[in-house]
Amino acid sequence: MSNPEIEAQLAPLRERVQEQGNLVRELKAQGAAELDVKKAVAELKARKKVLEEKELALTPSVVSFDRAKMEDLLKRRFFYDQSFAIYGGITGQYDFGPMGCALKSNILALWRQYFALEEQMLEVDCSILTPEPVLKASGHVERFADLMVKDVKTGECFRLDHLIKQALEKLSKAKEATPALQAECEDIIIKLDGLNKQELADVLAKYNIKSPLTGNDLTEPIEFNLMFATQIGPTGLVKGFLRPETAQGIFVNFKRLLEFNQGKLPFAVAQIGNSFRNEISPRSGLIRVREFTMAEIEHFCDPVHKDHPKFGNIKAEKMTLYSACNQMDGKSAAQVEIGAAVASKLVANETLGYYMARIQQFLLAIGIKPECLRFRQHMSNEMAHYACDCWDAEILTSYGWVECVGCADRSAYDLGQHTAATGVRLVAEKRLPAPKTVEVSEIVPNKQALGKTFKKEAKNITDALAKLSLEEITKVEQQLAGDGQYKLTLADGQSHELDKNTISVKHSSKTVHVEEFIPSVVEPSFGIGRIMYALLEHSFQCRDGDEQRCYFTLPSLVAPIKCSILPLSNNTDFQPYTQKLSSALTKAELSHKVDDSSGSIGRRYARTDEIAIPYGITVDFDTLKEPHTVTLRDRNTMKQVRVGLEEVVGVVKDLSTARTTWEKVTEQYPLFEQQEASSK
Amino acid sequence: MSNPEIEAQLAPLRERVQEQGNLVRELKAQGAAELDVKKAVAELKARKKVLEEKELALTPSVVSFDRAKMEDLLKRRFFYDQSFAIYGGITGQYDFGPMGCALKSNILALWRQYFALEEQMLEVDCSILTPEPVLKASGHVERFADLMVKDVKTGECFRLDHLIKQALEKLSKAKEATPALQAECEDIIIKLDGLNKQELADVLAKYNIKSPLTGNDLTEPIEFNLMFATQIGPTGLVKGFLRPETAQGIFVNFKRLLEFNQGKLPFAVAQIGNSFRNEISPRSGLIRVREFTMAEIEHFCDPVHKDHPKFGNIKAEKMTLYSACNQMDGKSAAQVEIGAAVASKLVANETLGYYMARIQQFLLAIGIKPECLRFRQHMSNEMAHYACDCWDAEILTSYGWVECVGCADRSAYDLGQHTAATGVRLVAEKRLPAPKTVEVSEIVPNKQALGKTFKKEAKNITDALAKLSLEEITKVEQQLAGDGQYKLTLADGQSHELDKNTISVKHSSKTVHVEEFIPSVVEPSFGIGRIMYALLEHSFQCRDGDEQRCYFTLPSLVAPIKCSILPLSNNTDFQPYTQKLSSALTKAELSHKVDDSSGSIGRRYARTDEIAIPYGITVDFDTLKEPHTVTLRDRNTMKQVRVGLEEVVGVVKDLSTARTTWEKVTEQYPLFEQQEASSK
Repeated sequence: MSNPEIEAQLAPLRERVQEQGNLVRELKAQGAAELDVKKAVAELKARKKVLEEKELALTPSVVSFDRAKMEDLLKRRFFYDQSFAIYGGITGQYDFGPMGCALKSNILALWRQYFALEEQMLEVDCSILTPEPVLKASGHVERFADLMVKDVKTGECFRLDHLIKQALEKLSKAKEATPALQAECEDIIIKLDGLNKQELADVLAKYNIKSPLTGNDLTEPIEFNLMFATQIGPTGLVKGFLRPETAQGIFVNFKRLLEFNQGKLPFAVAQIGNSFRNEISPRSGLIRVREFTMAEIEHFCDPVHKDHPKFGNIKAEKMTLYSACNQMDGKSAAQVEIGAAVASKLVANETLGYYMARIQQFLLAIGIKPECLRFRQHMSNEMAHYACDCWDAEILTSYGWVECVGCADRSAYDLGQHTAATGVRLVAEKRLPAPKTVEVSEIVPNKQALGKTFKKEAKNITDALAKLSLEEITKVEQQLAGDGQYKLTLADGQSHELDKNTISVKHSSKTVHVEEFIPSVVEPSFGIGRIMYALLEHSFQCRDGDEQRCYFTLPSLVAPIKCSILPLSNNTDFQPYTQKLSSALTKAELSHKVDDSSGSIGRRYARTDEIAIPYGITVDFDTLKEPHTVTLRDRNTMKQVRVGLEEVVGVVKDLSTARTTWEKVTEQYPLFEQQEASSK
Repeated sequence: MSNPEIEAQLAPLRERVQEQGNLVRELKAQGAAELDVKKAVAELKARKKVLEEKELALTPSVVSFDRAKMEDLLKRRFFYDQSFAIYGGITGQYDFGPMGCALKSNILALWRQYFALEEQMLEVDCSILTPEPVLKASGHVERFADLMVKDVKTGECFRLDHLIKQALEKLSKAKEATPALQAECEDIIIKLDGLNKQELADVLAKYNIKSPLTGNDLTEPIEFNLMFATQIGPTGLVKGFLRPETAQGIFVNFKRLLEFNQGKLPFAVAQIGNSFRNEISPRSGLIRVREFTMAEIEHFCDPVHKDHPKFGNIKAEKMTLYSACNQMDGKSAAQVEIGAAVASKLVANETLGYYMARIQQFLLAIGIKPECLRFRQHMSNEMAHYACDCWDAEILTSYGWVECVGCADRSAYDLGQHTAATGVRLVAEKRLPAPKTVEVSEIVPNKQALGKTFKKEAKNITDALAKLSLEEITKVEQQLAGDGQYKLTLADGQSHELDKNTISVKHSSKTVHVEEFIPSVVEPSFGIGRIMYALLEHSFQCRDGDEQRCYFTLPSLVAPIKCSILPLSNNTDFQPYTQKLSSALTKAELSHKVDDSSGSIGRRYARTDEIAIPYGITVDFDTLKEPHTVTLRDRNTMKQVRVGLEEVVGVVKDLSTARTTWEKVTEQYPLFEQQEASSK
């Protein structure tokens, strides 16, 4: 992106971003009214978007990609396709066929190796069905929603931002549209993400937007919670949801996990599993779906020691960082060594930096193009209120830059929320440098008096009293000293009047050797479907001079099938060799496919290229002669070498596990020169 | 079970079963009324149950197992535990901690190797959320239900059979219970499984059974569908369920999969994934849960060629088969070679027999005790109406014989159902021995006339006409020839009157070279949680003379962690060796755990034994000297050998992948004699 011609075109746009970025900074520095800051930020984002779109439009590699052609291949060879298609299908749900499923499990296996095994993480596998109180505490019940409107007659639903964008685009393209109207529409579309419910409702009203399908009136904007609801058990009384992320399963098990780790911090927990979001109108293929696989890590550490013992291993890793600051200044992302980024405090701490580097190493290992990967920092206004620092690994696809991995320092938020909701203290302990004496206040229940007055409820009252915070205890003491009464409200909503007869407050001092604290959490969170989609785009190719012959250059580490076996023809003399090779490959745990169907060898190679098989063994007439040999073909270069029958499985194994490279193989074995027959 | 003393006690019970089995056979032969057969079968099952319970009670190994002790260990070391416990927990849901999760993924990895890779299956990964019409076609919406009753006041639900059993047990144990009443209660409890809704309602009424919690009245029995319902999308109009099994995802993709396999049969499809059942009152730990992982295979084949090319490989496999016939005769299960069982038609066909043998090989490989595994054939009356033959792999646990893998020949049922529901023909083709001429009847729509009369509906009508069966076409022809009218009803319920002007019936003959058929399906279906639970029971042990020191003898192939590294003390000289070993193990992809905590070496060994780590490397003072060596310890025998530092990782790798055995290792390396310190 340092092409001077392109930069010249971008310069004025960059300037406009910077100008607005400075305004935002200024407003914040002045402590301006929240609404003014919000408006300025919305304008800033709008300008950033214009810049980014222009930048992408000027990047030729993205433009030349033919998505329809790739999707046709993915469908035809059943990498994945719409679920329940014979029943009409459901949008936002996909079934992974043999190739998609194998690719996905190879990516996950490598993920386990890169993270769970390498970092000795504790891997867990938690329930998908989640009772409501858990997701109330996490904030999902209240906040995990999108805005929609409904057709008042048919009930058809539309995601509000999509609908407005579509309507305004149509409006501005109409013959009668004035240049003023066109500019107005464009302006709203750009700012759409920053508008709130009321502002969006105003847009609906101003342009009199109707249902695009029926022309009917639409309802006011409605907040639609994106979780799938169900009932657990037969009573219909226990409300549950399909989890919208896997993380909560880890947080609610924190105590058990800390204990498993013998009470020591830091430690990291990993989980791979499915999550669900009831999108209002899913689109963009695998990018936005209702059911998806995530791989999440929660790294628990002491909030004041976020250094990482293995940071030294990765500190020289060069990364493309798109900092919040650069975003506000209209600048491009910059190449920075992660060590320098942490040293300069651009990245908040070593642990966060360590994971960012490891995420990059993993993504490059599976085949993501380095020039299409960047880490974008959340700007302070888009960061969840509890996060300290957050960087998204974004991958450039034909849909633009897509967030594929989030990497956030979530501080103590999640454990704090679940502690508050349950009264179970999700904390760790650390030894104090020296023992100290602390004042302790506690409420002492008069069990006899409580039992007499409250009968069965006495236990609930005692339990609730034990959970009161120091602040609340002070309040109790004040009230008892005042009118002698304290009203306790239980979790079930019931209230009880307590008095000096039933409770008292006791003060004492004790010596403590350890202190409790709520650990901080650093969370790398991988969207496996999105990564997979980006990888497919990055590896999609067509043969020079033959646009119909498409293939995927997936690295053998993740390729669904490692090797094909093709007998030159259906001559039965080839069969024993084909079978022998197949058994040997199975024994070496190498997935493979025998294609003994009719069709020229070139045509069959083309078929194996389509499903990304990196290596192909051909059994031909020379195989029948001693010393028995076969040819081994490389998908990417289409070059072949001649290898001994007994050796070839070992060579494929070494290639598939990256113990050798095709270049080395071609140096070691004689090239087999034969024009590959055309696929036609 | 051939102990003569035990057999003597069982003989009268065996006789009672046989007597009843013969009665059932007789009734069937006579074509007796269905109700009479059903009653006789219920009595047969009841007698079988008495026999089986007696048999189990006389088997000492099961009795001596201390389930509470094992469950305590599983909980304490977080193999698995109740989900959302800090929120009070939900019954029937479990979270797998680090050890449970690793054990589960090792079992699944081996499963993939044994089935998906070895048999070159097509592995798929389909959606969990399933729209209602799919599960209507499969029969789940109508039939996948259990009976329950509700407390009329509190709404509390009880699974009907559990409730009755509990109530009658209480009744017969009461002081005032007469011997007659006790006998009556016992009789009902035994026959409970065979009673229908009305009969159960009668039992409720007769014994005036109330809610065991409140004493309140109960409702009539209600059928409760066990699927979790939800809504897909925001309209609230698309009803969906969480899938109750993974199989349907495979069936609805049959066309794509057949095409992927280039139209050829047989082929097998595998899927690993979660399924959900909203049990009324889950219990028995991992045996009956609401959320569980299944591994299912659908093997599609020509219904008239169910032989299997690899049957020869496994035909000598000895299996414990508990045939329907033996069950009716009160006999034990018998040891049979699977080749002989198929030859004698005891097992319906080679494909079914092949999978049964492979299931057994897999279960034994992960560590299931051979003497606790049997294959029980469904008796004709308990088989789903569409199945030809069905054998369950049952594993003996402290809960009795538990069905862990089903292996059924489901004939053409599933593909037929989805074809009927969608009109999409889920069929395969095969070449006819010789071409043949067939008469074809088809309905020819007069498009112009249809368009004129029915406007937009014309296309739906034409589509519906194209789907009519030969039978229906004959009916159309008759009706047109009669009153000249034919009333067509569309899928949406609308009817249209057609006549000679809009349609006609054409007859022609054509030469066909292939014939279509609906493939048969053989379905091995694995309940992973149940297998895992049984495996834990089978591998649970306590050290001789120290009942507090428990461990699991899990084979290293599936053990959660393959190796521990224990420095003898916290002497810092050991650290570089510990780190070097840890890196080398990671490089060799061996999961391992460094335990450098304080505590005697014996105590730390005991801790690694608890989580089933099969091998332990100890770094001691001899390690510091040249030549550097370490000790390697075997969990099961507690023996140690002294091995070179550079060699030890290779030895552990060979042990973990079953390339060598501990016996061989002890022959190769010097024994290291040291009294293992006690755990106390």
